[in-house]
Amino acid sequence: MLQNKIKKHLTQLQQKKFRKEFQEFIIEGVKGVSEALNSKFEVILVVVDGSKRDEKDFAQIIELAEKKEIPVEFCGRDDVVSIKTTDTFPGVLAVVEQREVVLEDITDGSIICLDQVKDPGNLGTIIRTADWFGVKNILLSEDCVDLHNPKVVRGTMGSIFHVNVFRASDVVGSLGKLKSEFGFKVISMCMDGENINRDKIEISRDRTVFVFGSESHGVREEIEKMSDKKYTILGKGQAESLNVAISVGVLLSKVR
Amino acid sequence: MLQNKIKKHLTQLQQKKFRKEFQEFIIEGVKGVSEALNSKFEVILVVVDGSKRDEKDFAQIIELAEKKEIPVEFCGRDDVVSIKTTDTFPGVLAVVEQREVVLEDITDGSIICLDQVKDPGNLGTIIRTADWFGVKNILLSEDCVDLHNPKVVRGTMGSIFHVNVFRASDVVGSLGKLKSEFGFKVISMCMDGENINRDKIEISRDRTVFVFGSESHGVREEIEKMSDKKYTILGKGQAESLNVAISVGVLLSKVR
Repeated sequence: MLQNKIKKHLTQLQQKKFRKEFQEFIIEGVKGVSEALNSKFEVILVVVDGSKRDEKDFAQIIELAEKKEIPVEFCGRDDVVSIKTTDTFPGVLAVVEQREVVLEDITDGSIICLDQVKDPGNLGTIIRTADWFGVKNILLSEDCVDLHNPKVVRGTMGSIFHVNVFRASDVVGSLGKLKSEFGFKVISMCMDGENINRDKIEISRDRTVFVFGSESHGVREEIEKMSDKKYTILGKGQAESLNVAISVGVLLSKVR
Repeated sequence: MLQNKIKKHLTQLQQKKFRKEFQEFIIEGVKGVSEALNSKFEVILVVVDGSKRDEKDFAQIIELAEKKEIPVEFCGRDDVVSIKTTDTFPGVLAVVEQREVVLEDITDGSIICLDQVKDPGNLGTIIRTADWFGVKNILLSEDCVDLHNPKVVRGTMGSIFHVNVFRASDVVGSLGKLKSEFGFKVISMCMDGENINRDKIEISRDRTVFVFGSESHGVREEIEKMSDKKYTILGKGQAESLNVAISVGVLLSKVR
């Protein structure tokens, strides 16, 4: 059984205000916890389902945590109800310290910028997709979903530990700074841009910010205006819009 | 207030076995219900939150349903708890008859085939993405998630009414028939295929089945063996796999 103090802390971390207060978040599952332990992030606590402690995957996690002198607690079936963030508790979770990222940290290579992306599943998938295509820097507008929301964290499938995510307090200002001080180009995905499916488009990833808006509102006007180039993924069917994570995947597959 | 009989029926339709028994499914939301009413699908019943009947979007749906002689029922706040399929009831739903689709119905143009895709969100997004890129035919293996699962239906954002989805009882047999009887080529997305990001790849959509496997298991061996061509979306980062819906988007953006 977990101590009440720990149980309370884990429950609190499911709320944004406490994640902000403690500057921590929760990662669940064997893959995620293993990635956390092997990353540069500081892991504060590992919680393992006591009935699984002898299973291979879990035993390895316990061993790794102990080697790194990270406390490991064991929970019982009754604890799970209050600590799990999904319907089914995958048997292990870790409390991880949030990393502080400033604008300067994302200025090497290309950047994916998301404007008002509110769906946690989309943000998670976008981070995973960026990681797949080797883009390490993410810029979130002030009104995007919280990066440390459990659904976002889960959706990244561990990629949250491979990328630098900077949350702007003023995304237009940050983009301006990236242009003027760091020499970035801004490329926005809009409804009225150049057709990205055309033959000979060469999109370079050198010092480029690729901006994607929400499916309902698109990229905000101020950002459109400061864009060096606009692209569109043309559709042929009857669907009204393309999922934003799909747009990111399509664009990144075109970039050299 | 809804009659108990209707309430019971709506609750039952949240379960796969009853959807199968009645050959019906539920679509929620203004956009989805409007699409249903404007499609070739038979709408059996429309249920509107009584407190919203005078709001423009809802009034339009009611008018359209009545013009088509489709019964409209009004529900109260107490009904919502048992009939909603999401956390927040969007104020309107429709009961729609499932369309019977046979293999022959999907033999014009190209086909997206999904092998063992179990995640409802992914299937919904794939159908929406296929619709965006103008692919109207979907072939599901016998062990894919149920097309009429509420999360799938919601994820399609109305595109479920624009595509033909055939669920195979033996996907290998269906693919064999598409090759031998209908002259289709089979292209599979695999780990060891040709790099799709390479320069001069020309993928034609003429009589082609594009097969995508689950993220954990990939395309099954029997299908790989019968493929005319295999492609891979190469990654450069540390992510272990690409989301299957993203793979569909990337591939379709390359097809002419």
